[in-house]
Amino acid sequence: MQLIIGNKNYSSWSMRPWVLMKALDISFEERLLRFDFNPDSAFYRALATVTPTRKVPVLVDDGFAVWDTLAIVEYLADRFPEKEVWPRDLRQRARARSLCAEMHSGFGQLRGLCMMNIDAELATVGQRLVATEPGLAQDLARIADMWIDAIAQSGGPYLFGDFGAADAFFAPVVMRVTRYGLPMPDDLRHYIERVQAHPAVHAWITDAVAEKDFLDFEEPYRDVSGPVPVLKR
Amino acid sequence: MQLIIGNKNYSSWSMRPWVLMKALDISFEERLLRFDFNPDSAFYRALATVTPTRKVPVLVDDGFAVWDTLAIVEYLADRFPEKEVWPRDLRQRARARSLCAEMHSGFGQLRGLCMMNIDAELATVGQRLVATEPGLAQDLARIADMWIDAIAQSGGPYLFGDFGAADAFFAPVVMRVTRYGLPMPDDLRHYIERVQAHPAVHAWITDAVAEKDFLDFEEPYRDVSGPVPVLKR
Ligand SMILES: N[C@@H](CCC(=O)N[C@@H](CS)C(=O)NCC(=O)O)C(=O)O
Ligand SMILES: N[C@@H](CCC(=O)N[C@@H](CS)C(=O)NCC(=O)O)C(=O)O
Repeated sequence: MQLIIGNKNYSSWSMRPWVLMKALDISFEERLLRFDFNPDSAFYRALATVTPTRKVPVLVDDGFAVWDTLAIVEYLADRFPEKEVWPRDLRQRARARSLCAEMHSGFGQLRGLCMMNIDAELATVGQRLVATEPGLAQDLARIADMWIDAIAQSGGPYLFGDFGAADAFFAPVVMRVTRYGLPMPDDLRHYIERVQAHPAVHAWITDAVAEKDFLDFEEPYRDVSGPVPVLKR
Repeated sequence: MQLIIGNKNYSSWSMRPWVLMKALDISFEERLLRFDFNPDSAFYRALATVTPTRKVPVLVDDGFAVWDTLAIVEYLADRFPEKEVWPRDLRQRARARSLCAEMHSGFGQLRGLCMMNIDAELATVGQRLVATEPGLAQDLARIADMWIDAIAQSGGPYLFGDFGAADAFFAPVVMRVTRYGLPMPDDLRHYIERVQAHPAVHAWITDAVAEKDFLDFEEPYRDVSGPVPVLKR
């Protein structure tokens, strides 16, 4: 099984299935395609040979391509029924899927304004954004609510008990919260720390920070043209 | 089981699980909440008693709420394993989920420019949009490709053989294609006609057209203030 991903520092969608497969001990080969959004780039040319969409992640299982994070996660649940991709309980499973589907189609402000950038320290940017963008505060409030609710219902320590698809889906949100210093209720401090300390998440973070492949079009807030990135303005 | 939906003429997301449940003969009670996006509307007040998101559709099963279309569809697949919500074959199932996940998170131009409006005849609007909005043509090209591909692989007559979740997911796209007269390859004429003629889809269309509850904020192209809607300009 091969998982095709983008830059680890930036690719929030790639992070989800990668972290999930590591956490559940599903072995795979990683293939990293460096982001380059020029229409005729090596990135798009390589993708075109495996998938009709021009996006990562893509899971390739014995020549068969599954694309789009949510479909990949469901495929893993189908292929590895012994692994707990989703909670075993019908209602908990439904709830986990509602949250992932919300993430999959929503939170446009958070995603657009606070692009994932694991290497970066952007607390001053985050502070400014929270003060000026009401939609961002709304996104964060909904996320805080759903996390608190899920942990209360399941008893924790992760959203639905053990680390599963929902935690993997929100791991890039945890990255944004910590890198942009976004305000979250105190109740969630433990959860946020626990996700970052999880071996699978930790492994991704380590790779992302070691990457040092800074791409201007992924960096609205830093100038990455010099030897080290510096905050703009 | 209760399915909470919005106006049938406009609510593309509501249409998906409604049509799927009818097609698969899963019985449910329908609860229609009339759209009204004022923050304190009856629409939002009713929703607040069942779900933390402020969106339809919501499926309520014995007091338990499942929200977000994709999670509702997966819940139905879990609850009614004897019904063929997804194709039985692992790879066909994965492919169907990839297409639904693409729909769930993508096609922003088609969704934003050609809002579902089953009652309306908007061919002149559609013609203008296709000529002026390159993103719309791109969305349509990708949809045509995926439909042709799925039907070729499955042998039809629907995307993955019998009418299932993927067809329900794209039924609102079929509505847009026919109402806005959007260009689609000839190969797809039969599929488009077949979806509209399917008893479940046909029932929704009939209700939508009978509704005659025209809402200004859902009508960028028609003036609905008079006794009958007329095209603007
Ligand atoms: N809905 C898709 C989104 C994937 C996505 O947007 N991937 C980005 C990188 S994180 C990408 O490949 N962008 C390239 C492009 O949009 O052209 C999924 O869940 O997999
Ligand atoms: N991702 C959601 C989208 C649902 C959605 O956007 N519903 C619209 C009506 S079709 C709605 O309720 N809008 C009210 C609002 O956004 O405040 C789903 O798949 O269920």
